[in-house]
Amino acid sequence: MTAPLRLGIAGLGTVGTGVIKIVRRHRDMLEARAGREIVISAVSARSKGKDRGVPISGYDWVDDPVALARRDDVDVFVELMGGTDGPAKAASEAAIAAGKDVVTANKAMLAVHGHELALAAEKQNRVIRFEAAVAGGIPVVKALTEGLTGNDMTRVMGVMNGTCNYILTRMESSGLSYAEVFEEANKLGYLEADPTLDVGGIDAGHKLALLAAIAFGTRVSFDAMELEGIEQVTIEDIRQAADMGYRIKLLGVAQKTGRGLEQRMSPCLVPSGSPLGQLENATNMAVLEGDAVGQIVLRGAGAGEGPTASAVMADIVDIARGIRVPTFGRPADQLDEPVAAHSATPAPYYLRMALEDKPGALAKVATILGASGISINRMRQYSHQETTAPVLIVTHKTQREAMEHALDAFERTDVVAGRPVALRIENL
Amino acid sequence: MTAPLRLGIAGLGTVGTGVIKIVRRHRDMLEARAGREIVISAVSARSKGKDRGVPISGYDWVDDPVALARRDDVDVFVELMGGTDGPAKAASEAAIAAGKDVVTANKAMLAVHGHELALAAEKQNRVIRFEAAVAGGIPVVKALTEGLTGNDMTRVMGVMNGTCNYILTRMESSGLSYAEVFEEANKLGYLEADPTLDVGGIDAGHKLALLAAIAFGTRVSFDAMELEGIEQVTIEDIRQAADMGYRIKLLGVAQKTGRGLEQRMSPCLVPSGSPLGQLENATNMAVLEGDAVGQIVLRGAGAGEGPTASAVMADIVDIARGIRVPTFGRPADQLDEPVAAHSATPAPYYLRMALEDKPGALAKVATILGASGISINRMRQYSHQETTAPVLIVTHKTQREAMEHALDAFERTDVVAGRPVALRIENL
Repeated sequence: MTAPLRLGIAGLGTVGTGVIKIVRRHRDMLEARAGREIVISAVSARSKGKDRGVPISGYDWVDDPVALARRDDVDVFVELMGGTDGPAKAASEAAIAAGKDVVTANKAMLAVHGHELALAAEKQNRVIRFEAAVAGGIPVVKALTEGLTGNDMTRVMGVMNGTCNYILTRMESSGLSYAEVFEEANKLGYLEADPTLDVGGIDAGHKLALLAAIAFGTRVSFDAMELEGIEQVTIEDIRQAADMGYRIKLLGVAQKTGRGLEQRMSPCLVPSGSPLGQLENATNMAVLEGDAVGQIVLRGAGAGEGPTASAVMADIVDIARGIRVPTFGRPADQLDEPVAAHSATPAPYYLRMALEDKPGALAKVATILGASGISINRMRQYSHQETTAPVLIVTHKTQREAMEHALDAFERTDVVAGRPVALRIENL
Repeated sequence: MTAPLRLGIAGLGTVGTGVIKIVRRHRDMLEARAGREIVISAVSARSKGKDRGVPISGYDWVDDPVALARRDDVDVFVELMGGTDGPAKAASEAAIAAGKDVVTANKAMLAVHGHELALAAEKQNRVIRFEAAVAGGIPVVKALTEGLTGNDMTRVMGVMNGTCNYILTRMESSGLSYAEVFEEANKLGYLEADPTLDVGGIDAGHKLALLAAIAFGTRVSFDAMELEGIEQVTIEDIRQAADMGYRIKLLGVAQKTGRGLEQRMSPCLVPSGSPLGQLENATNMAVLEGDAVGQIVLRGAGAGEGPTASAVMADIVDIARGIRVPTFGRPADQLDEPVAAHSATPAPYYLRMALEDKPGALAKVATILGASGISINRMRQYSHQETTAPVLIVTHKTQREAMEHALDAFERTDVVAGRPVALRIENL
């Protein structure tokens, strides 16, 4: 009989509590699957006294997560505190240095420091596992790191921020504005302390950067990601998109191009009938494309106690079983430094602008697009509201650079109020 | 540097050829991911001379797959011959006895002999991997065996036979009859040598039995599965289902019930808007439900050279990496003997029958349903075509036993021509 696998859990929020519940409820099942007992030695969190709905008095309490990470009776350090730096990083580093494996749900830490942490872990012959960091309960990290190893991956896509998807679908179903739904989500406790992490696309961008590193064998490079949040999406955009057979989703796309690695997270129009277009509320979806397998779609709950704890437990059982795979699917010192290719892939765009009530205004718009090398697929101008008239344009495929050129030119004219909104159309 | 992992491949049809292509094309990538080289020592197939589009002269040729399985220069025996018994089983047994790991795409062999093979392998401390046996390129065996280990699984469902899904969607789009589309599929080479394996639900049933064993920790028990093929589905059923917002799919469901393990593979009505209802053509889908994770949906190509070879390669890379998990996710000698619960879960049913042109006929039908304890949700009778009139009934939830009772009674009356068709409605 193999010795029990001993956990030290730092962070007892929703996820940490969920992990403790599973370890307690499914002790025998976990032992049968892992081939050894899984036990909790010690825990750490900010507030010892708080009622979490699970008894924790049977586990040693440690105030300092770094001290927890170094304990002799801990084999796996389970980091569920969150935060790019601070205690999460310090304790993870301490755990690795002390020869522990690390399981974490911390996408921010890994998206920024993942490469150095992986190097450190592999030098110590330790593993870092992070299934819970990406798309909650969906075993997408495992699918990519282990399930599709026979493939040269060509593209990875995902709708991986439940809050954004909730806001966008709620705007659509209620007809409320972005600001109203944002307020509603805030009241329901759906938003992070810093909501720009969600609505600015940063959280989803962290997740995409991790998947891209595995898929393409490159060092995780969140800095190179093009990021655009959903704050500019209006109910009018959602309606117009629906009219054309599209829905707006905060979509992440990572792909290899002739110019390098393209990584972007931005609100896009996707066909209503496509798997991504059909997502509702907080459901997440990852789309993985490889040269042999074609397209694999994974869908499930992207957050919440149960789904996230499920992912953490899978990593723990893997370690108990002796499964040891490099953090990003190949040794960290063999990962390539990626060359960033910003929006290398051309796409059609949806453009919304407010046209001033001046003679020749529409002609100026058309001229600017033409001068930028962008051709128009469809255009609609609506009647004037006060001093401006909404104009909607769908372009043919164009490069992002050309679109930026046109957007700059629109801002310089006297016929367009403000900077137009330009959303990519992804015909998946 | 770890020594290369040496393969012996038996069976050089579509899948075997696909595996050779990947090993040749992605040698460096595979080595980076696996941490060691993956090489082919020897191959075996029925016809040596056949042109397969890949050079095989660099590999030793062995006529007898059993001899191949025992070779000293083979670490992993890759069984891609197919067949429940015969050479596939003999060679797999020989490989295990000789201390080799086995990778197979053979659902039939494992659904019938999986338990004894797993016992034998685990006695030898060897693994049997079979990702390619279920749902082609979708890494569903891995998701269930490793990705959801923190869950008490509650239900597993799937549309996992591409041929049936092709026939049903083609009937719908073309308006052709089952017999006409069957003939068409035959001409296109979509059917197995024995087409009842596909259209009778046997192939999909094999796959479901394997998933159920992993999900519920029970010995694989294909014999206990309720099987119904798609042969009885008419274009009229498809149209009526569509009218009510449903599509007909050959759906597999395995779940634990108070009375035991329910496993069934049968044509069902599923909501058109559900992920399962939206499947087209040969695409496969697996739905995995657990107490922590909720519902996970996986979708992808269920067959074909690339997708199936992708699954085989993932198993090979896992073995190269030293990943060793029991065949069915826990040691075979700890798997429970399942108690079979036939259609334990009640459901509404769709009923189609041909009513004789006799006074009081409809009243007799209603009486039989009432006497069987089945209440009617909706009923439509159409005008008579020659001597009979089509009657369509949607029932409220009922047990399968009650429905069988009613179907028997219908057959005994003189007002219903033939045995009515009864399809379960699964409101997922």
